[in-house]
Amino acid sequence: MTPSRTVWAPATPGKTVRIIDQRQLPWALVLEDLHTVENVATAIRDMHVRGAGCIGATAAYGMWLATETGVPLETAATLLKNTRPTAVNLAWAVDRMLREGATLDAANTIAEEDAAACQAIGRHGLVMLESLRKNLGRPDHAPLHILTHCNAGWLAFVAHGSATAPIYAAHDAGQRVHVWVDETRPRNQGARLTAWELARHGVPHTLIADNAGGHLMQNGQIDAVITGADRVARNGDVANKIGTYLKAVAAHDNNIPFYVAFPSSTLDGSLPNGKTIPIEERPASEITHLDGPDASGTIHTIALTPALSPVANPSFDVTPARLITGLITEYGLCHASEKSMQDIGLAPPPPTSRLASDIPS
Amino acid sequence: MTPSRTVWAPATPGKTVRIIDQRQLPWALVLEDLHTVENVATAIRDMHVRGAGCIGATAAYGMWLATETGVPLETAATLLKNTRPTAVNLAWAVDRMLREGATLDAANTIAEEDAAACQAIGRHGLVMLESLRKNLGRPDHAPLHILTHCNAGWLAFVAHGSATAPIYAAHDAGQRVHVWVDETRPRNQGARLTAWELARHGVPHTLIADNAGGHLMQNGQIDAVITGADRVARNGDVANKIGTYLKAVAAHDNNIPFYVAFPSSTLDGSLPNGKTIPIEERPASEITHLDGPDASGTIHTIALTPALSPVANPSFDVTPARLITGLITEYGLCHASEKSMQDIGLAPPPPTSRLASDIPS
Repeated sequence: MTPSRTVWAPATPGKTVRIIDQRQLPWALVLEDLHTVENVATAIRDMHVRGAGCIGATAAYGMWLATETGVPLETAATLLKNTRPTAVNLAWAVDRMLREGATLDAANTIAEEDAAACQAIGRHGLVMLESLRKNLGRPDHAPLHILTHCNAGWLAFVAHGSATAPIYAAHDAGQRVHVWVDETRPRNQGARLTAWELARHGVPHTLIADNAGGHLMQNGQIDAVITGADRVARNGDVANKIGTYLKAVAAHDNNIPFYVAFPSSTLDGSLPNGKTIPIEERPASEITHLDGPDASGTIHTIALTPALSPVANPSFDVTPARLITGLITEYGLCHASEKSMQDIGLAPPPPTSRLASDIPS
Repeated sequence: MTPSRTVWAPATPGKTVRIIDQRQLPWALVLEDLHTVENVATAIRDMHVRGAGCIGATAAYGMWLATETGVPLETAATLLKNTRPTAVNLAWAVDRMLREGATLDAANTIAEEDAAACQAIGRHGLVMLESLRKNLGRPDHAPLHILTHCNAGWLAFVAHGSATAPIYAAHDAGQRVHVWVDETRPRNQGARLTAWELARHGVPHTLIADNAGGHLMQNGQIDAVITGADRVARNGDVANKIGTYLKAVAAHDNNIPFYVAFPSSTLDGSLPNGKTIPIEERPASEITHLDGPDASGTIHTIALTPALSPVANPSFDVTPARLITGLITEYGLCHASEKSMQDIGLAPPPPTSRLASDIPS
């Protein structure tokens, strides 16, 4: 049986968090059981799980495991928050668990809300895609061509995904869509996760190098871009996977709409704009080495460059609100501005800067 | 002994063209001897050699081998021109060899001119870098940070390179430069060739994913971009390695100067603008598979994506002249416009559309 969720607490054996080990996709679908908050921290830091909503929910379950194993909640909170700095969902979920007593029910609620929010993003995004089709005068038999970057699919959340939710909703409603999938160096989440998701769901798609998107835009082969987000500031600036900004600026240069899809847990009400969003620098080995199977299926790790050269690996960038056509959230569609977000009732969750020691546990 | 040229005709054994097999760099420096025009066509098509100037000179030597082995020159010309569609140097060199009798002297002259043009590009580019340093008020002890894409180094020409020529000239003149090297998916010419060249020459550099350049620009870490070109239209539109346009549009968005360096043999006088430059579509395997050594040095070819997903692999894109700050050629610096190119005496070589049968052989 293939799971339809990325993280859950199985009824048996109890006191266990089960995840899909995404490092092994698409070559193998392997489940991993986590028993301690340290296990959870390792799984998040080393990217067994990744994606804004998925690491938020996984961290929430980690807080529950801390209570079950007698780890002080403030210790657990610090441990988990230090695993990945950019995605705000993680700190938000940890703080919420602190406030709500770190029970299994609280973790399950966070996971359910994430799935429900993504499903709502799909409904609102479908309306956007229907309008786009109408505005372009695209006949029913011709697909809409959507570019996406990285993986903001169900693997990046608890279920459904953010950027892919409108695509799945359109496909399931019988609308023709075709997805251009950026491979998304250095970790190739597009080539490994998004392509796998779309193939599994039967959605037509084509894998491309990250370098190709601008050329496709110039040649009328992309109708819209939809990406996810790891953190959104109050003014609508968006931190997302490195390379997102390059696609946004190219979309703007070609008058192609650029949408960002995210649940409200990704909104950071403490930041007036994107300039102060912390950008994670990840290990050089992500640039210098790559693993994958040879023709016989044996996995090898190979070098991509001589060992002589220094490497930089910033993992996120900030797309300024001025380049974003619209936001797709569980509250509906809006512009990338504080006013427009407020108009649809999109409220940031409680600030994550609240000290753990201020919160009753 | 390490060669300092990419292609030459060794005195012995005679009737031989010697190249560096660039597919094996940076893991091994292997020379390959070519004895027939068919060998040369294969070496160009399968990218044993690549880069605008290098494939032009190699094709010129291929025409000489055709005369030496009794292959009709028109047959040889057609064979060679069909190997790679985008770089105009190739067709230009073949046509020039047709006009000049396809002798060894003629091929050597084309190679010498390529090397001399690149050396002149270095001199003119050095002046540009000195002005940039002065305009930025950058002190002598602080480096200028230059981003380059793909490999427009000496490996892409006969010697010196185009985009790298100003960098080598500045470094050799004792000016501090630091190069951000785009890995340049899918064939990773930046990670494999440019990083190798710069390390060998002692030029400080840092390898990055193609996705990272926009973020570095937004954060003031790039002072200028210099790329090469595969074909330049009369109005200054430039075809270059896929992904160049994304860097140009991001540089424009951040007020960072964007330069393109090329010898006059890359100018296509038959094209009024870049819209009709043919864009080569290369094999899907370049996206789906990658080769490199494991920790023990054994080379493996690994898969990057499940076999289920279709792939597109356009290999070049066109950067419109409006995004280009300046051109660096052997005639000097100019703006990316027909008038400015004419002002410095930069003349396109004879049009390549001339029929081979019109030319006395």
